Amino acid sequence: MPMTRTETDSLGSIEIDDDRWWGPQTERARRLFRIGEERFPRGLIRAVGLQKQAAAEANLALGELPEEIARPIAAAAAEIAAGRLDAEFPLPVWQTGSGTQTNMNANEVIANRANAALGQPKGTRRPVHPNDHVNRGQSSNDSFPTAMHIAAAEAVQALLPRLETLHHALAIRAAAWESIVKVGRTHMMDAVPVTLGQEFAAWARQVELGMARLRDVMPRLLPLPQGGTAVGTGLNRHPEFDRVFCDRLAALTGLPFTPSPNKFEGMGAHDAFVELSGMLNVIAVSLNKLGNDIRLLGSGPRAGLSELIIPADGLSSSIMPGKTNPTQSEALTMVCAQVIGNHVAVTMGAAQSFLELNVFKPLIIHNVLGSARLLGDAAESFAHNMVARLEPNHERIAENLAKSLMLVTALNPRIGYDKAVRIGKMALAENITLKEAAAKLGFVTPEEFDLWVRPEEMVQPGANLEGGA
Amino acid sequence: MPMTRTETDSLGSIEIDDDRWWGPQTERARRLFRIGEERFPRGLIRAVGLQKQAAAEANLALGELPEEIARPIAAAAAEIAAGRLDAEFPLPVWQTGSGTQTNMNANEVIANRANAALGQPKGTRRPVHPNDHVNRGQSSNDSFPTAMHIAAAEAVQALLPRLETLHHALAIRAAAWESIVKVGRTHMMDAVPVTLGQEFAAWARQVELGMARLRDVMPRLLPLPQGGTAVGTGLNRHPEFDRVFCDRLAALTGLPFTPSPNKFEGMGAHDAFVELSGMLNVIAVSLNKLGNDIRLLGSGPRAGLSELIIPADGLSSSIMPGKTNPTQSEALTMVCAQVIGNHVAVTMGAAQSFLELNVFKPLIIHNVLGSARLLGDAAESFAHNMVARLEPNHERIAENLAKSLMLVTALNPRIGYDKAVRIGKMALAENITLKEAAAKLGFVTPEEFDLWVRPEEMVQPGANLEGGA
Amino acid sequence: MPMTRTETDSLGSIEIDDDRWWGPQTERARRLFRIGEERFPRGLIRAVGLQKQAAAEANLALGELPEEIARPIAAAAAEIAAGRLDAEFPLPVWQTGSGTQTNMNANEVIANRANAALGQPKGTRRPVHPNDHVNRGQSSNDSFPTAMHIAAAEAVQALLPRLETLHHALAIRAAAWESIVKVGRTHMMDAVPVTLGQEFAAWARQVELGMARLRDVMPRLLPLPQGGTAVGTGLNRHPEFDRVFCDRLAALTGLPFTPSPNKFEGMGAHDAFVELSGMLNVIAVSLNKLGNDIRLLGSGPRAGLSELIIPADGLSSSIMPGKTNPTQSEALTMVCAQVIGNHVAVTMGAAQSFLELNVFKPLIIHNVLGSARLLGDAAESFAHNMVARLEPNHERIAENLAKSLMLVTALNPRIGYDKAVRIGKMALAENITLKEAAAKLGFVTPEEFDLWVRPEEMVQPGANLEGGA
Amino acid sequence: MPMTRTETDSLGSIEIDDDRWWGPQTERARRLFRIGEERFPRGLIRAVGLQKQAAAEANLALGELPEEIARPIAAAAAEIAAGRLDAEFPLPVWQTGSGTQTNMNANEVIANRANAALGQPKGTRRPVHPNDHVNRGQSSNDSFPTAMHIAAAEAVQALLPRLETLHHALAIRAAAWESIVKVGRTHMMDAVPVTLGQEFAAWARQVELGMARLRDVMPRLLPLPQGGTAVGTGLNRHPEFDRVFCDRLAALTGLPFTPSPNKFEGMGAHDAFVELSGMLNVIAVSLNKLGNDIRLLGSGPRAGLSELIIPADGLSSSIMPGKTNPTQSEALTMVCAQVIGNHVAVTMGAAQSFLELNVFKPLIIHNVLGSARLLGDAAESFAHNMVARLEPNHERIAENLAKSLMLVTALNPRIGYDKAVRIGKMALAENITLKEAAAKLGFVTPEEFDLWVRPEEMVQPGANLEGGA
Repeated sequence: MPMTRTETDSLGSIEIDDDRWWGPQTERARRLFRIGEERFPRGLIRAVGLQKQAAAEANLALGELPEEIARPIAAAAAEIAAGRLDAEFPLPVWQTGSGTQTNMNANEVIANRANAALGQPKGTRRPVHPNDHVNRGQSSNDSFPTAMHIAAAEAVQALLPRLETLHHALAIRAAAWESIVKVGRTHMMDAVPVTLGQEFAAWARQVELGMARLRDVMPRLLPLPQGGTAVGTGLNRHPEFDRVFCDRLAALTGLPFTPSPNKFEGMGAHDAFVELSGMLNVIAVSLNKLGNDIRLLGSGPRAGLSELIIPADGLSSSIMPGKTNPTQSEALTMVCAQVIGNHVAVTMGAAQSFLELNVFKPLIIHNVLGSARLLGDAAESFAHNMVARLEPNHERIAENLAKSLMLVTALNPRIGYDKAVRIGKMALAENITLKEAAAKLGFVTPEEFDLWVRPEEMVQPGANLEGGA
Repeated sequence: MPMTRTETDSLGSIEIDDDRWWGPQTERARRLFRIGEERFPRGLIRAVGLQKQAAAEANLALGELPEEIARPIAAAAAEIAAGRLDAEFPLPVWQTGSGTQTNMNANEVIANRANAALGQPKGTRRPVHPNDHVNRGQSSNDSFPTAMHIAAAEAVQALLPRLETLHHALAIRAAAWESIVKVGRTHMMDAVPVTLGQEFAAWARQVELGMARLRDVMPRLLPLPQGGTAVGTGLNRHPEFDRVFCDRLAALTGLPFTPSPNKFEGMGAHDAFVELSGMLNVIAVSLNKLGNDIRLLGSGPRAGLSELIIPADGLSSSIMPGKTNPTQSEALTMVCAQVIGNHVAVTMGAAQSFLELNVFKPLIIHNVLGSARLLGDAAESFAHNMVARLEPNHERIAENLAKSLMLVTALNPRIGYDKAVRIGKMALAENITLKEAAAKLGFVTPEEFDLWVRPEEMVQPGANLEGGA
Repeated sequence: MPMTRTETDSLGSIEIDDDRWWGPQTERARRLFRIGEERFPRGLIRAVGLQKQAAAEANLALGELPEEIARPIAAAAAEIAAGRLDAEFPLPVWQTGSGTQTNMNANEVIANRANAALGQPKGTRRPVHPNDHVNRGQSSNDSFPTAMHIAAAEAVQALLPRLETLHHALAIRAAAWESIVKVGRTHMMDAVPVTLGQEFAAWARQVELGMARLRDVMPRLLPLPQGGTAVGTGLNRHPEFDRVFCDRLAALTGLPFTPSPNKFEGMGAHDAFVELSGMLNVIAVSLNKLGNDIRLLGSGPRAGLSELIIPADGLSSSIMPGKTNPTQSEALTMVCAQVIGNHVAVTMGAAQSFLELNVFKPLIIHNVLGSARLLGDAAESFAHNMVARLEPNHERIAENLAKSLMLVTALNPRIGYDKAVRIGKMALAENITLKEAAAKLGFVTPEEFDLWVRPEEMVQPGANLEGGA
Repeated sequence: MPMTRTETDSLGSIEIDDDRWWGPQTERARRLFRIGEERFPRGLIRAVGLQKQAAAEANLALGELPEEIARPIAAAAAEIAAGRLDAEFPLPVWQTGSGTQTNMNANEVIANRANAALGQPKGTRRPVHPNDHVNRGQSSNDSFPTAMHIAAAEAVQALLPRLETLHHALAIRAAAWESIVKVGRTHMMDAVPVTLGQEFAAWARQVELGMARLRDVMPRLLPLPQGGTAVGTGLNRHPEFDRVFCDRLAALTGLPFTPSPNKFEGMGAHDAFVELSGMLNVIAVSLNKLGNDIRLLGSGPRAGLSELIIPADGLSSSIMPGKTNPTQSEALTMVCAQVIGNHVAVTMGAAQSFLELNVFKPLIIHNVLGSARLLGDAAESFAHNMVARLEPNHERIAENLAKSLMLVTALNPRIGYDKAVRIGKMALAENITLKEAAAKLGFVTPEEFDLWVRPEEMVQPGANLEGGA
């Protein structure tokens, strides 16, 4: 049995494990919301700490709090930001939809820590009061969404280099294999040639554009609702609070946060997160293609397309001895499916924004941060454990290319589409080569065929045309 | 310029094209909702007609309407059910969320038609009044969702035989090709053998279970909210109206509709349609696999898996001469993606059911009927134009099977998993056969290998085990 | 630094923390999949243990494993089922898509535990071998989805009584408040009367139907793919293994599991989980309405609808003193949004079922079990902390009812719809009572009005009609 | 019976209604894809025409087609762009996933029209050949996605002014009603005051940001895959074709289209449309809030919040006489639900991009254009029929504000949060005013109360603080 203390706030008294720094609002919420095991990730708790620190510093600068109150508040908030008090945030995601309990959790922990620093036991609520001082000029309704913006902006910053890792791994392959000519495939069917490098360059391009998309969301993540207080009007805060807060926060984070010109929008609605989630959704779509394409090209090793050799990763089937599988593709595409699902959850929560306050805030940030984390982890894992360890199967690539009937396309500009069709159909039907069919039909001599149908010239514009490169 | 007449209801007067049978509520709505081009399908208009006809007959039976009023109402409603007045329903899906305007559209058309039958010009509103008589004992709030239930139940009945067409086509292939042994594939990689028939039987099973799922929704589609009138209480209707209505409707449709024991649930919520949409979503998932699998097995014709020969359908690439593509797989999987999206729209609309009335009714039924239609059309098209015209590529199937390394799995029970791994790895690394590797390692003699590794015995349980079949 | 041991399997050697019971496949996977923090819940690990135990017992009964091997395997598997080895399952959800690593994790832990029971140190792989014995007659490809079915079926069984708790709480309110007549609302606008009990009965009905929906999925959850081994054919297993396995499993769980007649379907596709997820999606839609409706009726306390009094739960705004919020509605509706998103993730993963093996298995079961858990937790929390503590605001209910203009609807059967419109419009425009307007227009005398417009008679069919109750 | 002609291409002969301008590929597709009734909208057919016209002009400029061939092709393409040949595009959305049949439809119609202009009967295929000339230097695989980009870019341009219409209507209300102080609502509960103008300004801000989001997609919509031909390499086209094509297209459309630096990405993947759809999804989320908020504030007219007066639109309930409903909110929010569902369909189709060609093209553009159309129509309808016709209910606004207990928040900075709680709780419990409770508790004199609690000063930052405005 842990020792408990009795804490009392304006709504009553409650027993709290005396080892804990939280207070009565947190303790009551802990008992009221016994739902699931999902907790906010480090990034959100850090953001809550940063928000409280910047607020204390702003209140100090504006004379809203005296130094002897503001300093210990800022110090305790900094501890939260640094991750030293994560265990003091016990509440589940599934709580009040404004995140009020997590904001009060921070207010209570900070008040207790600050009072302790000032020589008071836990639970005294003075000289530092969780509402009057820690929450000074603030409301959960502007503070929690501000923490959401901070956490999301930092998550984007963290995701970008991880996507760059994947982009780089793909770009290296694109360059190294730019001359490996192989059969292309459209509709999953044999088509005209491409190079293996071109395939990797296309995936790299998708990742690169994904990064551009993420950057484009920043102009709508950086404006903060802080300063709106309870409903967006800014009641009970200093007129300069929002500006000074953003200055302090920018100093703490290195990110150019600004006061939103319309605080109501950032509290009553969370469109910015739907937008960000939508971009993560695009990236999931991109990476789903990457994962699928790699497993298609690596299928085999003998009875598949078999143009890429999937790395042996030391794992195998529990029954089929020595079977190597594209396990990283599977982890990646599962992550993509989750991100796509998370996006719908975010959309659902944001669509139900009623009046002055959206009350799906914890849900929204849980999913946005979860998606960013998963995409980053999976992108790095795929870069290191799959892309960097793939090898081309030169023999099979050459074999597949040689037998493709779609090389006949190079003849279109010479003999016209209709005759080219007849060559291709005859080659397929009689199981002969295109050159044989072309000669048999009398459309193209073998010499012309060798001159006009050169796979290595078919992977760029114009090279196979009359007067081509 | 068409001739117009002036119609007047309790809310004012309005000019209406004199060719049309609708009235002022419809005309106003036509002008107020200029949104999109989506219109209700035949099935919903038919259901609206059936609902009005059964209501008139019930009111007659219960003495709520005199014969001279009820008969012409029922007759006009029957015309709507029969499809003779579809052009008189001009309103978009995107109207009042209760479907009120479509219910009033029916009330107005029926009143005008009934009055015409009684020798009155359009727009007289007597002796048959659209609200007092056609809508007798009804409200849009119970009548429109009743029409939704009718249309959905009939759509399920119509979809079942179309899925059976696909099921049958697949089952025929399963039986015909039950002895074609081929390489199986897990993780997209070569695995132990299956028969081509087993693959078709698995898809057939999915379709069969989809039909069972649809049938299981019927117990929640057949109970009707009719009789709830405005809010579920049944105000202004005869106590027996719901029961007699269902009897009449069952006679008209052949489906055993019953009065819902809780009318509120069927008006304020539309969970039954979310459930049905969820089942259509499962069927879309099933058919998406079918479409993908066929295009994977049919990939090639030379540089793919190439185990199935995709039918030449007379279509081709605009640039690659003679290229045959799995066009039916593409139409099918696009339909599946749409159904999956429609399901989210239905979910979204139903989740926002507020208090006594869900006001996303037109959206919900639009998507449910749209999905059922698309799945039925696509299933039939795929059955006729793809499944029935596929052919196995015996040569390639044999070649792929012969070279698969996973046949080594049959040795597990004889020599253990670890030795089997060594055989498989050597065969892959040295590009030799399993038999050669097994002999080289001294684990299995060539004679034992031939005895123990028989693909045709590997496609059923136990056949390859000691004392096996 | 923990002590390590070197474990060696057919794919190489690796160092493993000597405290751990897992083996090389698990250890490699642990290093290869550093993605996210999601782990399988207890229910899935339990199911994996049950699957291994039933398999060992079946192999013993069929003579496939000798008693001295089978018994310690079954005993170790039972430890897993009982939850004593949860810490030995370190792998994330985001691994191989077949769940192979979790199956091998179980095989390795069981082999080590069984060998330890037989006096061997960890890592010896004999006499009990993870593949040859623990995995006897099995593959990850049939065992893991079998564990998914077990876990999902048990999750459904666990969810049902929790939904019943909510249903019961609602039904009690429905009965207690069946005579409180209040204004109904359609389109969010004042409508004819309902009783407060009728509103609760409608929500209760939704929950009751949700339970019926869940039960209807069981026929497709109970048939198991166990026995399909690698690809569905049953290679390397005893012909009776699937039947005996299900008998053993039924004995262990009390649930009537049966061998699926088509193992391919249960391994290559996971439609049953899409169906189950679809039912959880319906329940989420139902509970979203419940959560929204309660917060609408409880809005206020003074400037809202204010017909229900939201319980004071000891929580409050951080800035608005003493503000009581519908926090349980918010937790509930956030859970609903998550379940709706999870459903799309499941759909996405199942739709990409390729050939003989769906490789989104961990994703699918993660989301299905997560949704079931969240709905159960939230339903109970809402029942206890919201429904059981709500109170009607009799004063406001009476006031709202008295001033509603839609009571005029009761006059339709007496004076017709058009005259009733005129009464309602005059009352609204002149801000007078309906009775006053009715008299002023000369349609109804005050005496008739009092006789015909009785709210308490308007909450059931026919009571207000001529000759009504 | 219509007269038919026999047309023959390389894949055979077929009978075609002689009134029609299409050819054998179109006719075969028409028979093969009997799925649904969805057809491409005008915007896509226009884009197909523009693509063909710009291609012909580019081929002429580059010497790839002689003037006597190129001119009539360009002229016929211009007819398509202008909408004069819409009836010649009979194919459903549910066709080949590359849009090949619609591209060939255009090629065939243009060839027939061009040949007719040159004096040849339909079906001659010379001098203008559909593949060799109309499709010169092109493939469906680059031409159809190019048309998708054109149509989507134009749809964005068309949507922007329609959103501006809504934005403007909201901004006018925001300005006009900026001084109407009213109760704010958070968690659906009474909160501190806002102005009615602030509420409209928040919605206006959402719409404004939605427009910014749409503009941000343009950099990824304007780069075109044209020039990739069959697989992205540009086989069979002039090296300058893509550049000249974009110049011509820019001249025709006024939009600065450019050649994509990576054609593979724009053919094999369609991430740009997922991004655009994601932005439409955000706008749907924004407008869903708008629609819901208006119906909440307009609820009543007597037993709701009743702060806004919903316009009487001439529509009414079929049973409740004179009932006015927020029908435009309902149409709007149904549209939003559809757009959210469409977004999932787009995501689903794009996620399944395999290798060199995504084959969900028709699905993707169908949904993107559908969503843009619906949002535009609904935004305009809502602006004109709802926003412009709303009126504030001054009396009710004042009454709701006066009785709100959250005005007590203004006392926080004076007496501290804990004392303010006690005032609020006493006022609620004893049903007295805040002023009375404050005096009774001895915390604030009535004079101080009147000085400190001024709703009109509570709608901006700092005004109520010591030394405030």
